Amino acid sequence: MKCEIIAVGSEMLTPYRQDTNSLYLTEKLNSIGIAVAYKSIVGDRLADLIGAIRTALMRVDVVAVIGGLGPTNDDLTRESVAQALGLTLRRDPVQVAALHTRAAQLRISMSTNNLKQAEVVEGAQVMPNKNGSAPGQWLDTAFANFRKILFMVPGPPNECKPMFDEECMPRLKAVAPEKHIATRVLKVAMLPESKADEMLGPIYTAYKDVETTILANAGDIQLSISCTKSALAVAQARVDELALKLEDALGDWMYSANGEALEQILMYYLGIKQASLAVAESCTGGMISERLTSIAGSSLSFAGGTVAYSNALKTLYCDVPAELINKHGAVSPEVAAAMAEGIRLKIGTTLGLAVTGIAGPSGGSPDKPVGLVYIALSDGNKNEVLERRFHGDRDRIRKYATQQALDLVRRRLM
Amino acid sequence: MKCEIIAVGSEMLTPYRQDTNSLYLTEKLNSIGIAVAYKSIVGDRLADLIGAIRTALMRVDVVAVIGGLGPTNDDLTRESVAQALGLTLRRDPVQVAALHTRAAQLRISMSTNNLKQAEVVEGAQVMPNKNGSAPGQWLDTAFANFRKILFMVPGPPNECKPMFDEECMPRLKAVAPEKHIATRVLKVAMLPESKADEMLGPIYTAYKDVETTILANAGDIQLSISCTKSALAVAQARVDELALKLEDALGDWMYSANGEALEQILMYYLGIKQASLAVAESCTGGMISERLTSIAGSSLSFAGGTVAYSNALKTLYCDVPAELINKHGAVSPEVAAAMAEGIRLKIGTTLGLAVTGIAGPSGGSPDKPVGLVYIALSDGNKNEVLERRFHGDRDRIRKYATQQALDLVRRRLM
Repeated sequence: MKCEIIAVGSEMLTPYRQDTNSLYLTEKLNSIGIAVAYKSIVGDRLADLIGAIRTALMRVDVVAVIGGLGPTNDDLTRESVAQALGLTLRRDPVQVAALHTRAAQLRISMSTNNLKQAEVVEGAQVMPNKNGSAPGQWLDTAFANFRKILFMVPGPPNECKPMFDEECMPRLKAVAPEKHIATRVLKVAMLPESKADEMLGPIYTAYKDVETTILANAGDIQLSISCTKSALAVAQARVDELALKLEDALGDWMYSANGEALEQILMYYLGIKQASLAVAESCTGGMISERLTSIAGSSLSFAGGTVAYSNALKTLYCDVPAELINKHGAVSPEVAAAMAEGIRLKIGTTLGLAVTGIAGPSGGSPDKPVGLVYIALSDGNKNEVLERRFHGDRDRIRKYATQQALDLVRRRLM
Repeated sequence: MKCEIIAVGSEMLTPYRQDTNSLYLTEKLNSIGIAVAYKSIVGDRLADLIGAIRTALMRVDVVAVIGGLGPTNDDLTRESVAQALGLTLRRDPVQVAALHTRAAQLRISMSTNNLKQAEVVEGAQVMPNKNGSAPGQWLDTAFANFRKILFMVPGPPNECKPMFDEECMPRLKAVAPEKHIATRVLKVAMLPESKADEMLGPIYTAYKDVETTILANAGDIQLSISCTKSALAVAQARVDELALKLEDALGDWMYSANGEALEQILMYYLGIKQASLAVAESCTGGMISERLTSIAGSSLSFAGGTVAYSNALKTLYCDVPAELINKHGAVSPEVAAAMAEGIRLKIGTTLGLAVTGIAGPSGGSPDKPVGLVYIALSDGNKNEVLERRFHGDRDRIRKYATQQALDLVRRRLM
């Protein structure tokens, strides 16, 4: 069973906005064995919309139309669907009443335009919208003698997603052939993408019935494994078998077998080891702390720390001797180690983590180029310092340094 | 002149990956007066691809096909274009030689598969690829008796973008009708989106020939204004006239008339006022510092500060008396003010900024609910404390608090 997602709205044909609802729908559709074969983005023009809907009806079984259900003149999805299918559009008195009730409850005035939202395509079921005024519509109909499902849901994500989950999914499950998708997400830190390809390619390409997608981003690799079978247990067994082989190959490069973020894993290990962490950041400028504190409950293991951007602050907040900075420079293994040790002792945590480096674009020199970063971890017994040279722009260098710093802590805790 | 962008690749029909090249191409195409009327995403299946290309050839003047030009069996763009247009595909000896030369230079072996990349559609111009092995192709041809431009560029962004800029843009300029687009981007902080709509809608909708797109994100609103005319000066005058009216209506809600980020504006004002800033963050956990340090050269005005996540750290690094925290709680206007004042005095900067709040999901209480945030700014003369109640999840509350904190500094400096 194949689906096409049509996202409606001229704003998504500008450089400023992108359709994101379709990623959500795709995941849900896949979970019940419906593949997304095409995605289309169309502007708010009647002829374009009718054309896109007809094209979709010709090539897939299920057409999901997102957006264009609002009250303005630009909202043309209802008209387009009716015309594409050769069906009439009528104003539904029940929907008119519902719009009036909603307006009264919210104490807002209702313009005549709003009544457009009460127009229903012949034969469609109306799907209520809990979070907005535009109802959705569900059509189980025929096109060129083939059975077709077409549904319309509103564009705003907070209206689209709940309506899709509560109204469309149960209906789709009832028409979809009995298929089950099993999935797993493995996550890997600081392994170069080319090395991952070389290492893992021969393994996963041998599983022709299992789909593996690799997504790499600033020192983080996500392997999404999925398999569709008529029996879930069979699909899950295939996914797990492949996952196990990939895990064996990856060894300790892999930090999660279930899709957790690196900072989440870190918080988990800090918790079970009853360890606490303080961080002194220079070039990462708060990025490490921001990632750690994005996890709810992180205050249990993460004390905080400093963004020691100036040399004076490295001394004030991490007790790094000024002479040490003068002698070796702020970007040096010595200063990184002293920052990690200093922040640990000053705050009184089990672990102290520090980063100092040159994020660029300026500030580099022949012996200390842009991208040079020192990352240090102190636990009272061992002071470990990594020297790394990251490439790319300021943002990329900072992201890589952050990922490497978090991974250093993970490896110590494991 | 209308364009359709077809992004080729089954990975973009999964929940894990999204086409992003099209945003880049759209901006460039718009700049020479070519509108993007449709975007399509198609998997690596020959029949689907031929169908999508034919559909595009029927409805637009320019078809941009991105991806599917690699050496594997899944790379079907060349075959699909040839079949859609009824043209032959031949192996070009010049391209075969180029592939061999490239492989020799990189000291890599060349598989037979690689020769697929030397296949050229009848009548196509080959576009060299500086950053990869797959060349692009440019076709100026006919379909159903209409002149059509179709070009193929590789999918990896670092190959796609330079080839598009260097090879496609000059050719497109030569065929595009002489049109010019003028643009302006206004940016606004902490104005609710509904209020912005109400305030600005009547102004910009009166300019029928000017397109205004509003993009809102966690307390930040971006107004993108554009106008297409045959004379650039005319287009620019229309854009500037509307921009001026919007600026008048927005007053000091607007922080940038040229698209700069809020943190960039802040750094600019700190520079011209010769002021320096230190930050003490609790619930934002490093997000404020991270945004400030994302700006190159920020170390000139931003000293750093602390992520004072624990109460002990608020005392250690900001000299907040422990009794004050005991008396009022860590999330209180008194502690926020003491943090701002303390970090300013301790680090010796002109300004001290502090945030303390409850980001959730847990930690809230009836009188101090999740989303309650205090933001304080101290400059030695005036201690200002804002109380805000933000809604949404942890990430959203932190983002709003960060934006509000940066905006507080901006308003003080202006």
